[in-house]
Amino acid sequence: MIQILTTGGTIDKVYFDANSEFSVGDPTVPEMLTESNIHDGYELRELLRKDSLEMTDEDRQVVFQAASESSFDRILITHGTDTMAETASVLSTLEGKTIVLFGAMQPARMRRTDALFNLGFAWSAVSLLPPGVYIAMNGEVFEAGSVRKNLEAKRFERV
Amino acid sequence: MIQILTTGGTIDKVYFDANSEFSVGDPTVPEMLTESNIHDGYELRELLRKDSLEMTDEDRQVVFQAASESSFDRILITHGTDTMAETASVLSTLEGKTIVLFGAMQPARMRRTDALFNLGFAWSAVSLLPPGVYIAMNGEVFEAGSVRKNLEAKRFERV
Amino acid sequence: MIQILTTGGTIDKVYFDANSEFSVGDPTVPEMLTESNIHDGYELRELLRKDSLEMTDEDRQVVFQAASESSFDRILITHGTDTMAETASVLSTLEGKTIVLFGAMQPARMRRTDALFNLGFAWSAVSLLPPGVYIAMNGEVFEAGSVRKNLEAKRFERV
Amino acid sequence: MIQILTTGGTIDKVYFDANSEFSVGDPTVPEMLTESNIHDGYELRELLRKDSLEMTDEDRQVVFQAASESSFDRILITHGTDTMAETASVLSTLEGKTIVLFGAMQPARMRRTDALFNLGFAWSAVSLLPPGVYIAMNGEVFEAGSVRKNLEAKRFERV
Repeated sequence: MIQILTTGGTIDKVYFDANSEFSVGDPTVPEMLTESNIHDGYELRELLRKDSLEMTDEDRQVVFQAASESSFDRILITHGTDTMAETASVLSTLEGKTIVLFGAMQPARMRRTDALFNLGFAWSAVSLLPPGVYIAMNGEVFEAGSVRKNLEAKRFERV
Repeated sequence: MIQILTTGGTIDKVYFDANSEFSVGDPTVPEMLTESNIHDGYELRELLRKDSLEMTDEDRQVVFQAASESSFDRILITHGTDTMAETASVLSTLEGKTIVLFGAMQPARMRRTDALFNLGFAWSAVSLLPPGVYIAMNGEVFEAGSVRKNLEAKRFERV
Repeated sequence: MIQILTTGGTIDKVYFDANSEFSVGDPTVPEMLTESNIHDGYELRELLRKDSLEMTDEDRQVVFQAASESSFDRILITHGTDTMAETASVLSTLEGKTIVLFGAMQPARMRRTDALFNLGFAWSAVSLLPPGVYIAMNGEVFEAGSVRKNLEAKRFERV
Repeated sequence: MIQILTTGGTIDKVYFDANSEFSVGDPTVPEMLTESNIHDGYELRELLRKDSLEMTDEDRQVVFQAASESSFDRILITHGTDTMAETASVLSTLEGKTIVLFGAMQPARMRRTDALFNLGFAWSAVSLLPPGVYIAMNGEVFEAGSVRKNLEAKRFERV
């Protein structure tokens, strides 16, 4: 059983015509899973709907608390990419659980998006990895504390 | 570095208007990877373009040979779902390599498909699992020799 | 108000994994209209779910009857492309109504399809054209009786 | 032969991860036409890449000039929806040509978008309508000077 926690980020963005801009909308993970033929085996809890640049220390405590009190040992967290590494660091003091953070460079609602691949990749990572806190992005697994987003290359990399 | 071998199956089907039916077309993995922000780290070799119900013992030897002679230790194989378990069994005598077979219930060229999730899931599985032969489908990893397709439930399951 | 009659054809095909082939499924027009921001102004009636190669004279009478008894003067008919021209001919004795037949070369459920463009094109044609029976395909309007499908070119053309 | 002029707007928006926002990107009409099985019969000219709220009087003169000097009598213009009605008014002094403006409420690059339907609808409208300046949106044709965008209802309506 996998606990899914959603916090917002690019993966969940929708386009609002009214103000001609993207905002964070309903979590896209449930529809992506249904489409991917995954109908059970998880429990989803929506925590936040934020661009990760707007996440505060309090927000990170909300995520920490939710991961900590979850009755499941395998936890997937959707998160904006800009401060995903920070949230991973905050979570890294949690012991005994396999926690995987992921997101997307293009919204799941776009025709071309990395969201579905990333979800599948993270799903496998959280199922197979030993306890710890990880970021699963661009087809690679990174351990919390040793990863950063390279804005220019649009990729995550080891530090 | 991941070796990708393609054999056909539902994942690569295209719709041909001329005869009003689906046939196996060009491998879809390269376009799916590009869309998923994965631009390198793999080498793809097209072996067959077959519905897996039409795969012969000779075809399976072609796959075995290609996996055996690959210079890479991590091998992903796209395959039709109907006889994926048989091919996995044939490959299971190969030692020292991590081999993951996967496919899709809906063609990658459909709007709604499990192909992208399955590709991401298999990508992570082949990166993280120890040597062995596995099937990665419907969000689960199965070991060769202990898995079958449940036609009615449209899922793979342990035997 | 537009009367929509559905008869099947490529536009409505779904992929059935069980037998590894495409079959005609639920009409796709309602979902396409919703996605296209068209929420009213039409009434849809499902008549048949057939490949157009399998349509019989009786089937064509069902279509004729439905078009004839509709209380609306503007009628859109989704139809397989192979015998669309034949059905148009049968309908051409109907007077006082604007009837437009259309379909698609690629199923509406594919990622890349002409179905949405064709629906929009036919929607405008049925709204603007004077009474008569027309085929609206590949961005052109053809009058019943002077059109055929060119199988090789995958297009409709004047005869 | 149809002259297509592009000015930007929601229809052509892309999502830029770097600044977490949508901006106007390459014109999407060519790819939409190819996907819709329309391979010739038009000439496209890119004029601007602007949100329509940012269009100036000078920009509208650029559009007027391009429509005026085109050697074709049927002209399609892609345009942001917010000031589409204004540009239509400016063009309405042009005589002897059928000019149709259209756009989309959701970017063409989204999975769910009205862009393909709207393109097909406008394509038919520009082919069938007599000389004049029109807006073709939400499945309806409006004449320049008697149309406005209803922001709340997300639709165009007659005034």
